[in-house]
Amino acid sequence: MTATLGPRGAALVRDVVARADDPADPMSRTDALIVVTPADVELVLHPQAGSAAGEVLAVGIGASPGVASGVAVFDSWRALDLVDEGARVILVRPETSPADEPGMAVAEGVLTSSGGLASHAAVVARGRGLPAVCGADSLQIGADSLTTATGLVIREGDAISIDGSSGEVLSGLVTVDDHEVPAELDVLLGWADEVRAGALAVRANADTAVDAALARAFGAEGIGLCRTEHMFLGADRLPLVQQMILADTPEGEAAALAELHVVQRADFEAVLEAMDGLPVTVRLLDPPLHEFLPDVGDLEVAGARGELDAAGAELLAAARRWHEHNPMLGVRGVRLAVLKPGLYRMQVRALVEAALLRIDAGGTPRVQVMIPLVSTAAELALARGWVTDAAAEVLGPRAGELDLRIGAMVETPRASLCTGELVDVADFLSFGTNDLTQMTFGFSRDDVGRLLDAYLGQGLLAADPFGTLDVDGVGELVRLGVERARDRRPDLEIGVCGEHGGDPDSIAFFRAVGVDYVSCSPFRVPVARLAAARAVLGA
Amino acid sequence: MTATLGPRGAALVRDVVARADDPADPMSRTDALIVVTPADVELVLHPQAGSAAGEVLAVGIGASPGVASGVAVFDSWRALDLVDEGARVILVRPETSPADEPGMAVAEGVLTSSGGLASHAAVVARGRGLPAVCGADSLQIGADSLTTATGLVIREGDAISIDGSSGEVLSGLVTVDDHEVPAELDVLLGWADEVRAGALAVRANADTAVDAALARAFGAEGIGLCRTEHMFLGADRLPLVQQMILADTPEGEAAALAELHVVQRADFEAVLEAMDGLPVTVRLLDPPLHEFLPDVGDLEVAGARGELDAAGAELLAAARRWHEHNPMLGVRGVRLAVLKPGLYRMQVRALVEAALLRIDAGGTPRVQVMIPLVSTAAELALARGWVTDAAAEVLGPRAGELDLRIGAMVETPRASLCTGELVDVADFLSFGTNDLTQMTFGFSRDDVGRLLDAYLGQGLLAADPFGTLDVDGVGELVRLGVERARDRRPDLEIGVCGEHGGDPDSIAFFRAVGVDYVSCSPFRVPVARLAAARAVLGA
Repeated sequence: MTATLGPRGAALVRDVVARADDPADPMSRTDALIVVTPADVELVLHPQAGSAAGEVLAVGIGASPGVASGVAVFDSWRALDLVDEGARVILVRPETSPADEPGMAVAEGVLTSSGGLASHAAVVARGRGLPAVCGADSLQIGADSLTTATGLVIREGDAISIDGSSGEVLSGLVTVDDHEVPAELDVLLGWADEVRAGALAVRANADTAVDAALARAFGAEGIGLCRTEHMFLGADRLPLVQQMILADTPEGEAAALAELHVVQRADFEAVLEAMDGLPVTVRLLDPPLHEFLPDVGDLEVAGARGELDAAGAELLAAARRWHEHNPMLGVRGVRLAVLKPGLYRMQVRALVEAALLRIDAGGTPRVQVMIPLVSTAAELALARGWVTDAAAEVLGPRAGELDLRIGAMVETPRASLCTGELVDVADFLSFGTNDLTQMTFGFSRDDVGRLLDAYLGQGLLAADPFGTLDVDGVGELVRLGVERARDRRPDLEIGVCGEHGGDPDSIAFFRAVGVDYVSCSPFRVPVARLAAARAVLGA
Repeated sequence: MTATLGPRGAALVRDVVARADDPADPMSRTDALIVVTPADVELVLHPQAGSAAGEVLAVGIGASPGVASGVAVFDSWRALDLVDEGARVILVRPETSPADEPGMAVAEGVLTSSGGLASHAAVVARGRGLPAVCGADSLQIGADSLTTATGLVIREGDAISIDGSSGEVLSGLVTVDDHEVPAELDVLLGWADEVRAGALAVRANADTAVDAALARAFGAEGIGLCRTEHMFLGADRLPLVQQMILADTPEGEAAALAELHVVQRADFEAVLEAMDGLPVTVRLLDPPLHEFLPDVGDLEVAGARGELDAAGAELLAAARRWHEHNPMLGVRGVRLAVLKPGLYRMQVRALVEAALLRIDAGGTPRVQVMIPLVSTAAELALARGWVTDAAAEVLGPRAGELDLRIGAMVETPRASLCTGELVDVADFLSFGTNDLTQMTFGFSRDDVGRLLDAYLGQGLLAADPFGTLDVDGVGELVRLGVERARDRRPDLEIGVCGEHGGDPDSIAFFRAVGVDYVSCSPFRVPVARLAAARAVLGA
């Protein structure tokens, strides 16, 4: 555990800010930004252990920084129950899915046995500032207990601790430091902002108004990635999404979309309000439809037990119809919209209506619509047509009132290589480096945990490529993509919205190749602000 | 159906060869190679319809050329029964897997409702010269019948026909032309060989001695891809592979590997004999281990029905352990060997022993060991070490007797971008354009069928990228890969062993970027010989 380092971060920040104002022992602001490292800022922001816990049970991937202690719980619903009873819990799962998000919302930390830095658990935890250890694959995690490599069994209610920086999983509780953030951090980051102004902006990946407000408080200059799928997973929306998927007539599909439209508009209005005056990049629906359906295997097992009713049988048929061998390479993003174009039209109408409501309320919405998983300029041109048509229908004579841009998420190797063609139909580009890393290596972010242990252990990789950008491969695609885009459109806005946008080493690379902004989880925004300034300084 | 074109191909070939020898109406050999197109050669080689059949039931992807008629059968074992009883059958499946290969071996043709040009059904059918239509996704194919979009039901024993060039599926039987190949084709292809000699060689993708002999008879100048996994799927080998996977001690694993070693050696000896004197490129094991295990879902359903015995429960545990969300991006190729290095050592020992047996028998084996799914030079260097160590153990003082080269299959975008590093530890490179296409677009070859209909129909793609190389994206990676490799090692041997190696348009591109050879299914070798000559001529 990094407990002994904890005070250093905060003390150092206080010290350098004081010295910069001290005529007797002066330190320049530039020197201050070089002395304080991004790691110091992480230490300041996240809880650290005040005392050591028990035995090390396993070491996984430190997926979201901070130390957390609580009792183990193996099911998201049980997590809600135990927290209701006053417990602090660590949610322990083989892996997480959107269905676990209510449990993650109340947990102190999360622990998984599979998945890497770009897995669902890791991405959601970082977004919430929730400590997480992922891919601890020496643990066998079952429905109500975990078993360590040495045979120790931890059951619900047993105390465990995790360190989301080192990746350690420990038995017992640790005392967790109060992590009051010193006011001097704001001063220091203000200096960082001056250094990087006009050179490298920092936005946040935020899906809700709450996250957007948090990101803004942390200094984000807009939203670089607002994932709309999370808006579809609430208990009130999921049945509507399933109704849309199951619809066997255009009318049935349209009716479900009309209901989704209403809730989406309210979501968008709240996000635009929280980020008023700053750019909000909304990614239209990305995940494959089967993510909104129950698991085929679970339904088949229920069927074999005679426990499937008519509605269940209908869901099973739909889940089978949308089942894919490799969903990460399947009908996602713009491809889904090619098959179901009503979906993107509905989202755009809801978004533009929300923007008009904001204008009516005196706000200044700045909307960027981002098309995911593009691989050809023809796809982007088609999607651009849907967006402009749907926006024109809503705006009518008010078209001049709204700042609306349409761009592409560059996350397939093909899109990176072909940015010279994409820019003819894009107002901006944003590199989605999570997917780009998956496809450039051919590494599934959900399955890579077991491999990474071996690869890092044997020196086959210097770092987890989902944590720190692989400069020679993925970075080369980003470099070529920026170069080819700027050859044709020197002033085009180019950002990065993958998780690497919050990683200091990766930020230095993005600055070097000429990216305009990085976007990361709200809790990483302060770190990114300092890292971006250091990149500009060449530190 | 293209029946009316059939005679033209053969008649044209006879005509141009005759005219080249006719002083009264001379045609140069070069002109002959330009007048006869690769499509003519396909028409000559594959059966065409002599009479029209009934109603068009569906149109899928023409995945392996030729026309076939027979009675529909929906299960590979039933196919064997019906053929035993004297029937000609068309095997109809939602998709095929290695378990369907015995049924494919006796069928006249194969029809699937999902999967594209690079799916299992398409690749195996082309390798066998078996007409195939894939991805006919308007058909609902069940366990004992298919239903068309208009509600027509075809049951086992009903007559159907397929055209593997046009992709049409028809009710009823067609008469199929005799397709005697005119002797003049050999003459013409001999001229083609003279033109392309030293410029662009043609090898074959062949996994068995039978395929190797067939490829050689079709004019292949070696094997560019010998897939060793097919050697693991025979009824006598699969239990050994499962024993290796299930082994919970190194000794248990070693015992299973020792038995596999013996059968692999015999396989390799036969292939090397069939290709004696020509290069044989052996790809070490590539697929994920779960391909050798039963399906998790099937086992779970059996469990829910109380039909799982102890052995079945053990298989279920293993299948779960090796289950992956996106197996195409998972533990495959060299990654599997990083986790289980004994596997590649065993394969290399078997291969080198086989080569020594061939030398003892007076043969001249030329062995190229190819490491699949490489993404970093460190991986390749590690694998190269296993290969050289295992070879040295077997060869001892006879090391000087064997021509043994070690190279990488370039099939991840990262490998393509980093060939400048790979060549320091490679004797050759070979582009695997199937996987490279999957990862460059982010298209799963098993799931792409439903998308391709929409994409080709709406003009979002000009051609199926698994059939004709996507020059702007995948081709750009090949171009960069060749350029960066040759910058450091100008004389390095570079080939292509994806299915595009048999596609005329793609062959022209490979010639243009400086590839040394293409490798394709045996039945496509004659087409590739002509296409390669035309590429050299700039036709």
